Amino acid sequence: MSAAHRVVIIGGGFGGLYAAKSLGRSPVSVTLIDRRNFHLFQPLLYQVATGALSPGEIASPLRYVLRKHRNTQVLLGEVVDLDVEKRRVILRDGEAPYDDLIVATGATHHYFGNEQWAPIAPGLKTIEDATAIRRRVLSAFEQAERETDPQKRRAYLSFVIAGGGPTGVELAGALGEIARDTLRHDFRHINPAEAQIILVEGENRMLPLFPPDLSAKAEKQLVGLGVLPRTGARVTNVDEDGVTVKIGDKEDRILARTVLWAAGVRASSLGKVLAERAAAPLDKAGRVLVEPDLSVPGHPEIHVIGDLANFVHQGGKPLPGVAPVAMQEGRYVARLIGKKLRGKPVAPFHYFNKGNLATIGRNRAVAEFGRLHLWGFVAWFLWVFVHLMYLVEFENRLLVLVEWVYNYITRNRGARLITYGQP
Amino acid sequence: MSAAHRVVIIGGGFGGLYAAKSLGRSPVSVTLIDRRNFHLFQPLLYQVATGALSPGEIASPLRYVLRKHRNTQVLLGEVVDLDVEKRRVILRDGEAPYDDLIVATGATHHYFGNEQWAPIAPGLKTIEDATAIRRRVLSAFEQAERETDPQKRRAYLSFVIAGGGPTGVELAGALGEIARDTLRHDFRHINPAEAQIILVEGENRMLPLFPPDLSAKAEKQLVGLGVLPRTGARVTNVDEDGVTVKIGDKEDRILARTVLWAAGVRASSLGKVLAERAAAPLDKAGRVLVEPDLSVPGHPEIHVIGDLANFVHQGGKPLPGVAPVAMQEGRYVARLIGKKLRGKPVAPFHYFNKGNLATIGRNRAVAEFGRLHLWGFVAWFLWVFVHLMYLVEFENRLLVLVEWVYNYITRNRGARLITYGQP
Repeated sequence: MSAAHRVVIIGGGFGGLYAAKSLGRSPVSVTLIDRRNFHLFQPLLYQVATGALSPGEIASPLRYVLRKHRNTQVLLGEVVDLDVEKRRVILRDGEAPYDDLIVATGATHHYFGNEQWAPIAPGLKTIEDATAIRRRVLSAFEQAERETDPQKRRAYLSFVIAGGGPTGVELAGALGEIARDTLRHDFRHINPAEAQIILVEGENRMLPLFPPDLSAKAEKQLVGLGVLPRTGARVTNVDEDGVTVKIGDKEDRILARTVLWAAGVRASSLGKVLAERAAAPLDKAGRVLVEPDLSVPGHPEIHVIGDLANFVHQGGKPLPGVAPVAMQEGRYVARLIGKKLRGKPVAPFHYFNKGNLATIGRNRAVAEFGRLHLWGFVAWFLWVFVHLMYLVEFENRLLVLVEWVYNYITRNRGARLITYGQP
Repeated sequence: MSAAHRVVIIGGGFGGLYAAKSLGRSPVSVTLIDRRNFHLFQPLLYQVATGALSPGEIASPLRYVLRKHRNTQVLLGEVVDLDVEKRRVILRDGEAPYDDLIVATGATHHYFGNEQWAPIAPGLKTIEDATAIRRRVLSAFEQAERETDPQKRRAYLSFVIAGGGPTGVELAGALGEIARDTLRHDFRHINPAEAQIILVEGENRMLPLFPPDLSAKAEKQLVGLGVLPRTGARVTNVDEDGVTVKIGDKEDRILARTVLWAAGVRASSLGKVLAERAAAPLDKAGRVLVEPDLSVPGHPEIHVIGDLANFVHQGGKPLPGVAPVAMQEGRYVARLIGKKLRGKPVAPFHYFNKGNLATIGRNRAVAEFGRLHLWGFVAWFLWVFVHLMYLVEFENRLLVLVEWVYNYITRNRGARLITYGQP
């Protein structure tokens, strides 16, 4: 084994995991490095944040998923640097030599220079983010129940979500359902349905990556759940009491004790390391501008995939930071490494767009398949089907199906626990 | 409603929740106070700690469980004191007046004066305890995988559980299964089956509350899972590197990086408050010695139930701190309050012992029903059945059933995530 071609993959998200799976039967030695011991099915993370699913139901232990690949080892560790001359990944407590390197470390929140907003307006990327948001949202209703001052109570019952992309829309829709349905009979002093849920988006429509007609459908479906959409509105300040938004020239103050951030992402810090060590060109968001074969210019042995990559060789617009892109890129790089070893040529990466889905709530979603645009129940049903199919373990599919069927019938969300940090 | 007889219940565990449920149709106004927003099904908490179940699957939002009881309000808050003269419960941020008070705040870990052991040897009482233990156990295997020094590796692969009662036995058995089955194909540099799992018990047999023949069966079943039982052994020291145990006059040192504490419980601090404010007599463990009707002597309006109560009026031995005792006591006090309001006499509390169950692992358990003693598959199947039946929500029953069937077939434990405190 030690003589085998060594492939190191950094990151066990969709890109890294699909690359590792595709390399499972190749004559190479694979090392998958991640800081966490599990793959997280991020498209459903907002359901953990809103109490519909438990963390374990959308996470799969990486070792378990890859247990049958005898050529693959999983390494729990944090990458701090790269030595591209000696082809070594530097970990906090060790190193891993490579012949081919796949960097798939994704993206994190971006506050556009206002990092001080982070503790007030948390984003949603990790399990810990999700349980923290869940705690905030549920605690806000609890505090409203005990608050006697009407104005303070109003602030507890006001929720602002910054960012009208898929995550923001999903969070806003789920909050609408929590306020109107889930908590309907739970309180004695407040009416949760009076909660204000405000979704703020800078562009002039929600879901700007979707066609305009579907944006309009999405907005209508949000309004139906009691969400107030504010488009063309930029968040200019966030503090403990609420947010300030600018619409045109007018500044507006919204009093709200809960602010969630879904407005921007920035590439992971490994982008900077690649820029320094391998002279990789970066875009504004810190993503690596990759070659047509997803490699770093001048470094055919370093491949960048997923949210960390900016791939623009197909029509001019960079590919979006979604799971299908990362999955296809992971599979492509695995195939490329196999062909390279056999001395065969490789065609440039080509993304096959199967369509786009975004959900808003129960029976509410939008779907785009080229010129076919769907919304409402049909789009929602497709969304449910696709997400169940792509969940990584069969066990998780069963568990999520049970939760969803049950939630669909009762409108309950069973995982709405307020939990705290470790003792 | 404000003129109704006010019943305040402190604690939403088995005792408090069953009292609240039983009072749901009485002409009284009920306030259930808890620090947490959910009821925790503690008998299955060890399965969260060992990666078999997710927290949400054994927790039920208290508001949801009681949503249909219009005479009941749930109050999320921390009780800091009692004013027994003015009949008020003092919260950190408010107060709640009562006509009848039910105190059901349970018990916590007890280190017998060695509280400095707590951070090294965590106990298992809360969801946060369980996810912390899960992190420690899984991280130990991860660190062993990366450790090259054989002696250090051995220490990472050594686990000591202090206390051979039901919780200790369950934890030890689950660790045995994790090492032998769950992680079998997961690592490349260690063989998890080489892990040492040592269960230390002060008495001369495991499960001392069970009959001796079942203790012997339990020990045999533990050994079958690779657990090393050490009876008649007292833990005299715990530090970062391991534990010291005393067997007879001999002290023995066990090097182990993971130590779990299941050796003692102490009544919650509300016991002391009752002693100070209502002159309640306490036993050595801080439990309130209650009257035959579960009231505090001299205070017929204060009822103490569950693990906080020491009830000795039936044969001389105090009732054990188990769920069925708390449930029956909760129901009894609810009935007592109803009868008191109608001016009717109430018979003393009588515990109906339906039997005792303790599980060790897959197909392994012991059960006592009076003179009928069972073990192995039959006892285990009964244990599974009873625990599914008593889970509080139907949804949780379904989810746990799916997890168990799946785990039974695959020997996998899907919820083995290493998670950290809130960001």
